[in-house]
Amino acid sequence: MKKTSVTLAACAALLTFALSTTSMAQNQGSKQTPESTEIYEPVPPVVTPGTVSANTSGTTPPSDATVLFDGKNTDQWVAITGYDPASWEKTNAGPLKWPVTDGVLYSTKGFSARSKKEFNDFQLHIEFKTPEKVEGKGQGRGNSGIFLQGRYELQVLDNYENPTYVDGMVGSIYKQAIPLANPSRKPGEWQSYDIVYQAPRFNKAGLMTDYAYVTVLLNGVLVQNHAAIRGTTEYIGYPKVQAHGAGPILIQDHGNPVGFRNIWIRDL
Amino acid sequence: MKKTSVTLAACAALLTFALSTTSMAQNQGSKQTPESTEIYEPVPPVVTPGTVSANTSGTTPPSDATVLFDGKNTDQWVAITGYDPASWEKTNAGPLKWPVTDGVLYSTKGFSARSKKEFNDFQLHIEFKTPEKVEGKGQGRGNSGIFLQGRYELQVLDNYENPTYVDGMVGSIYKQAIPLANPSRKPGEWQSYDIVYQAPRFNKAGLMTDYAYVTVLLNGVLVQNHAAIRGTTEYIGYPKVQAHGAGPILIQDHGNPVGFRNIWIRDL
Amino acid sequence: MKKTSVTLAACAALLTFALSTTSMAQNQGSKQTPESTEIYEPVPPVVTPGTVSANTSGTTPPSDATVLFDGKNTDQWVAITGYDPASWEKTNAGPLKWPVTDGVLYSTKGFSARSKKEFNDFQLHIEFKTPEKVEGKGQGRGNSGIFLQGRYELQVLDNYENPTYVDGMVGSIYKQAIPLANPSRKPGEWQSYDIVYQAPRFNKAGLMTDYAYVTVLLNGVLVQNHAAIRGTTEYIGYPKVQAHGAGPILIQDHGNPVGFRNIWIRDL
Amino acid sequence: MKKTSVTLAACAALLTFALSTTSMAQNQGSKQTPESTEIYEPVPPVVTPGTVSANTSGTTPPSDATVLFDGKNTDQWVAITGYDPASWEKTNAGPLKWPVTDGVLYSTKGFSARSKKEFNDFQLHIEFKTPEKVEGKGQGRGNSGIFLQGRYELQVLDNYENPTYVDGMVGSIYKQAIPLANPSRKPGEWQSYDIVYQAPRFNKAGLMTDYAYVTVLLNGVLVQNHAAIRGTTEYIGYPKVQAHGAGPILIQDHGNPVGFRNIWIRDL
Repeated sequence: MKKTSVTLAACAALLTFALSTTSMAQNQGSKQTPESTEIYEPVPPVVTPGTVSANTSGTTPPSDATVLFDGKNTDQWVAITGYDPASWEKTNAGPLKWPVTDGVLYSTKGFSARSKKEFNDFQLHIEFKTPEKVEGKGQGRGNSGIFLQGRYELQVLDNYENPTYVDGMVGSIYKQAIPLANPSRKPGEWQSYDIVYQAPRFNKAGLMTDYAYVTVLLNGVLVQNHAAIRGTTEYIGYPKVQAHGAGPILIQDHGNPVGFRNIWIRDL
Repeated sequence: MKKTSVTLAACAALLTFALSTTSMAQNQGSKQTPESTEIYEPVPPVVTPGTVSANTSGTTPPSDATVLFDGKNTDQWVAITGYDPASWEKTNAGPLKWPVTDGVLYSTKGFSARSKKEFNDFQLHIEFKTPEKVEGKGQGRGNSGIFLQGRYELQVLDNYENPTYVDGMVGSIYKQAIPLANPSRKPGEWQSYDIVYQAPRFNKAGLMTDYAYVTVLLNGVLVQNHAAIRGTTEYIGYPKVQAHGAGPILIQDHGNPVGFRNIWIRDL
Repeated sequence: MKKTSVTLAACAALLTFALSTTSMAQNQGSKQTPESTEIYEPVPPVVTPGTVSANTSGTTPPSDATVLFDGKNTDQWVAITGYDPASWEKTNAGPLKWPVTDGVLYSTKGFSARSKKEFNDFQLHIEFKTPEKVEGKGQGRGNSGIFLQGRYELQVLDNYENPTYVDGMVGSIYKQAIPLANPSRKPGEWQSYDIVYQAPRFNKAGLMTDYAYVTVLLNGVLVQNHAAIRGTTEYIGYPKVQAHGAGPILIQDHGNPVGFRNIWIRDL
Repeated sequence: MKKTSVTLAACAALLTFALSTTSMAQNQGSKQTPESTEIYEPVPPVVTPGTVSANTSGTTPPSDATVLFDGKNTDQWVAITGYDPASWEKTNAGPLKWPVTDGVLYSTKGFSARSKKEFNDFQLHIEFKTPEKVEGKGQGRGNSGIFLQGRYELQVLDNYENPTYVDGMVGSIYKQAIPLANPSRKPGEWQSYDIVYQAPRFNKAGLMTDYAYVTVLLNGVLVQNHAAIRGTTEYIGYPKVQAHGAGPILIQDHGNPVGFRNIWIRDL
């Protein structure tokens, strides 16, 4: 291989140009990437949850609850295409065809679930289990999500000995609020969410005059305490402020067959 | 009996005087009475709670919890005299001698219980049952209370088909916050409180610059959502603002033998 | 006039009945006295306000404000009888006949003022001066009040070297929130209130699911910071929870001729 | 100058290494671009502020305020290098050498200002004017910033008929909270900020258990109402959660000579 000799100064100039070009690209760029909004610390402490309110079959909802799934059918839901919140408002792919097996509803690739009824302030109870057979890692393992009023995602993920960015952990408001603890159960075990949600407030100009607030117990352990939700869940970029009224509960399909049961909701 | 005849006018005058005297007494008086701070409406709706997280024995606390009572002994507690918060700070009547029977701790007339440890922000779980044999009514039936940081009472009461003033119901922050629902179980059945508490903030002048906030599930049903506690629990008159640091959990004895079990607390 | 003769026994029975009825009423919520809800400490520190935003004539409102009084007339107001919030909803005594002298509106005994327009969330600016000639003391000196949404009173009082119960001071939410400071100007000097108000939220059962919140600057000094208003202003007894929508601004006449100017409000 | 000869291959290798290093950095949390976190709607309405509390010279602070600048000198400040919050903690470039001209303090390129004293909860008043001669546009025009506790930026910008992303407008908490209005005065006119700030709360794990909250009046018009600040101001990417105690006030130099006067702060 023939060597071509250049001056160090020329090389330095080239180097400088190359780096400055990169820098310029950053300044000009609008290449929003998912990683821009991942946070890696502080890491919430691992807590082994107690047996309270978990792994219990045969439980019943409060008398004033709307039952969204009681183990029998998907009558309270319609299917929507994909797992992109931006498109969910516009799609309705008809009846939800997620399988119900032994009283458990499983998310299936390609369709997410939207409740037929819409809600404002509410208390929501939902139980889930991620696949017992562990596949993938990080966000690729037991991923689903519960979208409050169709816009704000409470993350569902198998985070048992499976680290990821802390604003994307189970118990997080996805890319907005880090959970206070990681009380994940093992893959395949039933876990429970108890969620208290207050809808945001908007003025005539479409500006948010008060946040949505959410308090969440995961397996009986507090993970969010009156967390302020400032806008829509976005995979890339910042939460958006979009005025809205009542909204549905959405359950995301993220390509992992997550099981759900005992889903009920109370208007507050 | 001899009848004395008087004119109707004289009788009316006497009546007017009597009533006006009463009225004057009201205007002059400084007789603070308990009734001054009772509220009777709006009445929270009755909700039959589900079986979730209730009436379950053998449950265990999360791994990071401080266990205050595990069914065995009262080592985590001392006795204090009476049920008056004003005096509790000053008294320590030694070991708590409430009986532990079949894993249940019973409040006994004349002494209340104070935890040895003190807390700031916390999550508290506690289960209770009011006497199966119903005696008394209103505030006289199954009355106890859980004092957060030794000052702010979350009411314990048998409110099953037993109305009382709504700011004194089970699930109320006593005389400060009406519960959102009445999910009482029947007398003698186990009930559960899941409590999320954030301590108040005080400035150098002793003024409260942020409230204590509390969120409470009673039998899995939301009864307080980020309720603002503005001062001490007072039987008569308004809440007082008194700057303080960490404080204990107190369980009131109100003369009714209320049973407790499975008490644990997590620092937040 | 014909006299009707009755027996003394009958009169006594009537008297007894009348008194016992009164007594029963008292047990159900009375012997309520104003003093029951007065708090005397901690005492907010005295602060001498700066000249910022005070004693300045010729100021103008923001362009999007509704001007409620610009120094000329009372067209934006109606009169209401008395100073009792409980009766204000029901009365409309016609045009407000408070005198406007040299661009100043003076409260006059026997009528309070209600804005014709109603508001939800808002920013309110109002300037006031208490009588230069000091008469009375405590609550009897320069007393007026601004009722937010017609229900929640921000106290107006001459508190310059004039102590009173701290939950009734100028800058207090009357009997609900103690001010953080006492930046009173001298009697006869213009003072300013800058008020940010968020309306409460109620559910279908009539229960308050979120407080009204208020932040207040008095003479440019913070006296309330996101204070939670839990119910109606009551002279005797506890705040009441009453669901409502938009409401007016009321200015109380309390028998002292307090002057007002430069009143404007912005919908938020 | 002596030329040193290197091989092209060596130069290429160096170039490749340089670029790949940049690329690796991007994969570890980058391709993060500033634009990722810019929001462009909803646009806050333009409001022409009133003359209240503005363009007034000779005003004085409240008696309990710490005066940070009274028109005379920079004794309350030190210089810090650059305008990058990440580096500010570590730098102290000695006395602040910003010029004081006719009682006005001007930001100068290359150094920002840090108050010597540190604060927790506070009320801050500050007046500013952007250059009368308009140069640049968007974020390049009259840009400065006030960093609360040294971490959370309240944006200063000439937004008079100068649109930019709404979460970077004057009155915004930079890239976290859109202002409710745009009450900008013209370039060269004095504007005022009245800021009420409550510090965040952290637990032992370093997690934020309550937000910082801020309420802001710009030229007497509300632009932030109890806005929740969830983490540090970041030019690129998401706010970070970093536990801290008391912190200084920082005034950013962003290359535009912005004038400041009448800066005072009160501990709450």
